[in-house]
Amino acid sequence: MKTTLLLPRWLLSMKPGEGVLEGQALLIEGERIAAVGARADLLSAHPQAERIELAEHVLMPGLINSHTHSAMSLLRGVADDLGLMDWLNNHIWPLEKRWVSHEWTRLGSLFSAAEALRGGVTTLNDMYFFPEAMAEAALQAGIRAAVSINVIDFPTGYASGPDDYIAKGLAAYQKFKGEKLLQFTSSPHAPYTVSDETFVKLRDMAEQHDMRIHCHIHETQDEVDGGLKQFGVRPLERLEKLGLMNERMIAVHMVHLTDDEIGMLAKNRVHIAHNASSNLKLASGIARVADLDKAGVNVALGTDGAASNNRQDMFEEIRQAALLAKGSTGQPTVLNARRALEMATLGGAKALGRERDLGSLEVGKLADVIAVDLSAPECRPVYHADAQLVYVAAREHVSDVWVQGEQVLKARQLTRFDLSAVVAQVEDTVAKMKN
Amino acid sequence: MKTTLLLPRWLLSMKPGEGVLEGQALLIEGERIAAVGARADLLSAHPQAERIELAEHVLMPGLINSHTHSAMSLLRGVADDLGLMDWLNNHIWPLEKRWVSHEWTRLGSLFSAAEALRGGVTTLNDMYFFPEAMAEAALQAGIRAAVSINVIDFPTGYASGPDDYIAKGLAAYQKFKGEKLLQFTSSPHAPYTVSDETFVKLRDMAEQHDMRIHCHIHETQDEVDGGLKQFGVRPLERLEKLGLMNERMIAVHMVHLTDDEIGMLAKNRVHIAHNASSNLKLASGIARVADLDKAGVNVALGTDGAASNNRQDMFEEIRQAALLAKGSTGQPTVLNARRALEMATLGGAKALGRERDLGSLEVGKLADVIAVDLSAPECRPVYHADAQLVYVAAREHVSDVWVQGEQVLKARQLTRFDLSAVVAQVEDTVAKMKN
Repeated sequence: MKTTLLLPRWLLSMKPGEGVLEGQALLIEGERIAAVGARADLLSAHPQAERIELAEHVLMPGLINSHTHSAMSLLRGVADDLGLMDWLNNHIWPLEKRWVSHEWTRLGSLFSAAEALRGGVTTLNDMYFFPEAMAEAALQAGIRAAVSINVIDFPTGYASGPDDYIAKGLAAYQKFKGEKLLQFTSSPHAPYTVSDETFVKLRDMAEQHDMRIHCHIHETQDEVDGGLKQFGVRPLERLEKLGLMNERMIAVHMVHLTDDEIGMLAKNRVHIAHNASSNLKLASGIARVADLDKAGVNVALGTDGAASNNRQDMFEEIRQAALLAKGSTGQPTVLNARRALEMATLGGAKALGRERDLGSLEVGKLADVIAVDLSAPECRPVYHADAQLVYVAAREHVSDVWVQGEQVLKARQLTRFDLSAVVAQVEDTVAKMKN
Repeated sequence: MKTTLLLPRWLLSMKPGEGVLEGQALLIEGERIAAVGARADLLSAHPQAERIELAEHVLMPGLINSHTHSAMSLLRGVADDLGLMDWLNNHIWPLEKRWVSHEWTRLGSLFSAAEALRGGVTTLNDMYFFPEAMAEAALQAGIRAAVSINVIDFPTGYASGPDDYIAKGLAAYQKFKGEKLLQFTSSPHAPYTVSDETFVKLRDMAEQHDMRIHCHIHETQDEVDGGLKQFGVRPLERLEKLGLMNERMIAVHMVHLTDDEIGMLAKNRVHIAHNASSNLKLASGIARVADLDKAGVNVALGTDGAASNNRQDMFEEIRQAALLAKGSTGQPTVLNARRALEMATLGGAKALGRERDLGSLEVGKLADVIAVDLSAPECRPVYHADAQLVYVAAREHVSDVWVQGEQVLKARQLTRFDLSAVVAQVEDTVAKMKN
């Protein structure tokens, strides 16, 4: 079995209670982390291992992007600075209706996977149609992905109605069962696009196949008001009554919450995927992340899709989450650098039910590892490497990435496929869409 | 006189009312922009000019960072996630007291000038002590700077009291008079550190020497409350009565404002330097930028110093200003990409009283020009080059920079000095400070 010894300047394991360490090394054996310990000890114990010196790098767990729509990279910047319904009705939905196909989704997802890996993301929690296309793209890129069985109550070019979405999604799930890089989620789109009956079906599907549930909830005040008007209760209460608000649930956005709702989320062990930049850009508001964190709710971080967050940069989201929590509460000590990093690593792993395998650099866990090079002038001096990752570094400083023990980014170059060919295909596709 | 013909894919002049143009070229002759026009026309009219192809680049005016403390790059990341007074009293001020000198300020300022140029910033509006050191650093780096005659009412290692700060500052001003890259500002630190008597002196000095006034105002609610308690009026009203709130004033932060105050700012033609990230990080709050803009107040953007905004990235501040204005107002159409870019270019030029020479690519203006390379996969596809600059690109995509006609960054390399030697000096200095 191949062994690789990573020799970083700083090691940030994200193991609870452990700070930044120096003089440490990490041994990858096959797919997993086999040892973490003093550099000298590991060097002498593993003379045969390939050695990779990371002289000015932080070694840390791969980032987990807990919410995105990968294929929408093809719509990056197509329409900005618009109101949500204008943006959806007059730009995004017509384009999707005309263009989205298996091939379009596969291309956009592969393009996004490249962007993710080059930015230190090793796991994508995706939501889109054509789950087979996303699965194929993730396997080609060598990125870990949670692929959605995404359902809305109206027909699209992909499926004719809820049962068709579910049948097609389950077929994809069966097809890719056993792929170690993949898991599938049961994914009702949102309370305003999914009926009670469909929610119940997706709840049952999740239980039957041990899936997470991935759903947009309380993104806007309009959604909350509309739900109240249509169902007599706020969407969160409706979903709770339908039996969906439990530890399977990755609730995305959750911008508009009462104190009682935060209490319910904590009690029911619901996970939150916070998308700070997208919520700002679409003017949805500012989620109460500091309050959720204080209440003990597990918060993960996501970028949302490239159509509402054009820069798919998890480092940006980590910084944004930390800054926004302080600025919106008036408390500069909330969501410190360490806590923000936890949300993007262990928080994401917990949300996906994968904390035994992912989210920290610990012996026995899968080797999803990234190296961040702090040697650029912009990253100097380094007083505290962990805070530097949050407040200074960004995705352009990610140099090397391993997913499940395989090096998929080496000195900023993807090892699995020719990115320039993918970009050329993207340009061709977009040129057609512009005409 | 040297002539250079820049041949970009996209030209974003920032001339009011003009959008993104393709097929254009820009001619630099000596220090100024000599022509902007169709590529073919300029190529045939200027056969002797050096030609620079910028195949996938946007050419735009250099960014103006309207508020920073350049020397504080040496304190980048020294203490994060703390309350303002804990941060100042227990970390920043003791370090400054012990270490700040002419040499320390010059080094930190030169290091910041490098970071600025590499990030597309061609003008820094700086505030710090040892103005000679800042002036020397700017001239060495070849960056344009507004150097402060910074005054507080208590003694520091730099000066013994207000009159001493002013005398030393005026000596520096006289010494560097005639340097085309420099202007000086009259810079009372803040209402809570400067007496009425000193404010009046600095107002008069500004009028006598035709200087801008550069002052922190209404940064925190505590400042406003404290001023009200001590002086019986809010700081802004106090400064208005003292005759400082006029078109000379660059008022920094201005987070806490009433509607009446916004009306007064518009009427008096006061300029605002908005520092979105710093205000979030120190939990000062969120400035009412959309309201200021709507009222017709000129808003410029700044990073603040590296101790409170560790990433001195004006692209980040442009994006942050646009996002935060939307998220905090619930209106996705406010501060669109174009408007945010204007704040960082023409807005900054107006704040410094330099709009006849700076802020847009127009014939006769000084050639402060940057090229942003959108060829990276992360920057594709390009539907709208201006929105791409705001929502996707960042400082790492800046490839070439001209200040006053001189190319100071070429394919991401500084042309004037050896940055690695500066970084080595920074590391030595910081190593001493850590001991």
